[in-house]
Amino acid sequence: MKPLTVIAATALFAGCAMAQDFNDRPPNAEGQTPAFANQTRAPALANIVMDREVVARGLEHPWGMAQLPDGSWLVTERPGRLRLVSPEGNLSDAIAGVPAVDALDQGGLLDVAIAQDFAQTRRVWLSFSERNAEDLTYTAVATGVLSDDASRLEDMRVIWRQTPYPSTLHYGSRLVFDGQGGLFVTTGERGGTDAPRFAQDLSTTLGKVVRIDPISGAPMGRPGVDGAMPEIWSWGHRNMQGATLGPDGALWTVEHGPMGGDELNRPEAGRNYGWPVVSYGEEYSGAKIGQGLTQKEGIEQPVYYWDPVIAPGGMTFYSGEMFPQLQGDLLVAGLQAGAVVRLKLGADGRVSGESRLLRDVGRVRDVAVAQDGAIMVLTDEQDGALIRATSGR
Amino acid sequence: MKPLTVIAATALFAGCAMAQDFNDRPPNAEGQTPAFANQTRAPALANIVMDREVVARGLEHPWGMAQLPDGSWLVTERPGRLRLVSPEGNLSDAIAGVPAVDALDQGGLLDVAIAQDFAQTRRVWLSFSERNAEDLTYTAVATGVLSDDASRLEDMRVIWRQTPYPSTLHYGSRLVFDGQGGLFVTTGERGGTDAPRFAQDLSTTLGKVVRIDPISGAPMGRPGVDGAMPEIWSWGHRNMQGATLGPDGALWTVEHGPMGGDELNRPEAGRNYGWPVVSYGEEYSGAKIGQGLTQKEGIEQPVYYWDPVIAPGGMTFYSGEMFPQLQGDLLVAGLQAGAVVRLKLGADGRVSGESRLLRDVGRVRDVAVAQDGAIMVLTDEQDGALIRATSGR
Repeated sequence: MKPLTVIAATALFAGCAMAQDFNDRPPNAEGQTPAFANQTRAPALANIVMDREVVARGLEHPWGMAQLPDGSWLVTERPGRLRLVSPEGNLSDAIAGVPAVDALDQGGLLDVAIAQDFAQTRRVWLSFSERNAEDLTYTAVATGVLSDDASRLEDMRVIWRQTPYPSTLHYGSRLVFDGQGGLFVTTGERGGTDAPRFAQDLSTTLGKVVRIDPISGAPMGRPGVDGAMPEIWSWGHRNMQGATLGPDGALWTVEHGPMGGDELNRPEAGRNYGWPVVSYGEEYSGAKIGQGLTQKEGIEQPVYYWDPVIAPGGMTFYSGEMFPQLQGDLLVAGLQAGAVVRLKLGADGRVSGESRLLRDVGRVRDVAVAQDGAIMVLTDEQDGALIRATSGR
Repeated sequence: MKPLTVIAATALFAGCAMAQDFNDRPPNAEGQTPAFANQTRAPALANIVMDREVVARGLEHPWGMAQLPDGSWLVTERPGRLRLVSPEGNLSDAIAGVPAVDALDQGGLLDVAIAQDFAQTRRVWLSFSERNAEDLTYTAVATGVLSDDASRLEDMRVIWRQTPYPSTLHYGSRLVFDGQGGLFVTTGERGGTDAPRFAQDLSTTLGKVVRIDPISGAPMGRPGVDGAMPEIWSWGHRNMQGATLGPDGALWTVEHGPMGGDELNRPEAGRNYGWPVVSYGEEYSGAKIGQGLTQKEGIEQPVYYWDPVIAPGGMTFYSGEMFPQLQGDLLVAGLQAGAVVRLKLGADGRVSGESRLLRDVGRVRDVAVAQDGAIMVLTDEQDGALIRATSGR
């Protein structure tokens, strides 16, 4: 990893004094003790032995995937390629028309999402890292239309750009439709231990969930918070590389924490998720994060945290029929875990059990549920793979 | 686990003074420093992503397996059943004619082996635990013929019985043809931390590799050692649940050690492998084994040891064409490891790399290579499975 040089941050700080105001929120409705405080290391769940097959190999650091109605999979490769994998495992050439990406360190072509009415519109969204004329980088979102022969993206337009920053780390980013006409984009705080607390700075979109119109990119933000950038939904996040809409209709996210501080959150509009004011982790040097707080009034607790970390990639709730025992469980891709991390949620919303699935496939970057209920994973390798896990006979 | 009561050991001790003589061997040809001293924690090998399928479920604590020429698998279930699994995964009823087994604790029906000329003779061997009229138990080996319809074993005869002992632990036992007309049987020392050093007592077959005639059971022992029981090949073993003939034509074994002391050995005729005089492990209480020695003149070093332990089941060398990168590697079933432990051996016979395969299938009791080079594993569960791992497309 190359050294991170923090430059020209003054302009980004314009809103910092103001930002404090947004922390003056009352504590949770539950009172001083947050509902989910301190939840980690849930009891182990029984192992599930799955059949599996490598559907496609030769994917270079694949990052995101979306299944098309015909059963094939759009898969992003971080260096900047979008590929189509047929149900039989045939890998297409790179699809033309993908925006130029800044594929350094953690940057590149990241997530892909398709329209709910893709069969009619063939509309596709991509998230990726871009570099501007000032040599600053940021997460961007573009949308366009996949040609009928799936050979190219047409009419691609960038509809949203994150606040630029000098770093090639912590770009987020997952694309999640909110079911209400909006598109959530999860971002990163862009890394660097010496960097100011941009995740708490509401004049930037670093370390935020943002909510935009999926066609125009217009801010859809959140109700009831004034002064912050209009697309901001929630803040105080570190690096959210996983997000999904839960069966409860709410957004769920996972973020990379520092050592011992990976978090599962259920970000609500206008709320602060604490980074770097509170954290269950610490610097890799062993130093405290800020004052070493894990809880603070006006700051939300994670639903769950991991120590040691799993290094979360993508996530999804399991909703298929193939694995009845996984119904409603949360599946989180684990890079460091080298597995899919399974969390069972109780009726009270708390995590009642945890286990690891697919523990020998390497670094898991993304996880998805196929139309037939199979579990699909992407492995983050130079020679990465799309793997399909099934219940067998 | 029920408490182990050690009774009536006096008779078994008759040969102990004599046993000392057999330790007065010169050190290794290599001199005072054994060739493989202290080898553990070899460098990690690259992960291998495999396809896999559950061929059959519903096997109750399966223990051993052997593939028949038609591609089906004979599988033992520890409670005392022998089953046939067709290539399509159909599970037969229990095959009739299996000897009565003492299926308590670690005892029951254990290994199964077939004749090299099975297609003509249909001859099968079984290892299992028996209980005698004095209420003592031991490992036994029987042979018989599988009926043409595979519904029953005929003419079953017990051809060898281990020295009886009051315990229901540490029975060994794998059956390995030596390629020279003999049959190796690996045993256990029968457990119990207070028990005398039966593994060093050459008037018993506890903690020994024995070598017998596969039809008559007559001792075939080893050349050049006098006074010991005639079937003993090597001694000083703890509980060998894994064994195979290597591509070098030699016997290789794995044994359960105490905490931190699982061993890979290449037992040679008339040699002492040290239990409990030397060990790399210690009691689970933290107490030393004996004087806490790891090496001693006249005692062989393991090729490799594991700390933390893997709890080894069966083992095999990989020789198929399906996984060229595994060619010549040693595959060891790991119960505690919950995986197949892979060891790469260098030209010098030392272990040059280690990794884990099939890490999410649960406790692995046995591993075998199928005719087509697929890797087969049995999982040691109440609802155990026969799993087939392949290289995929």
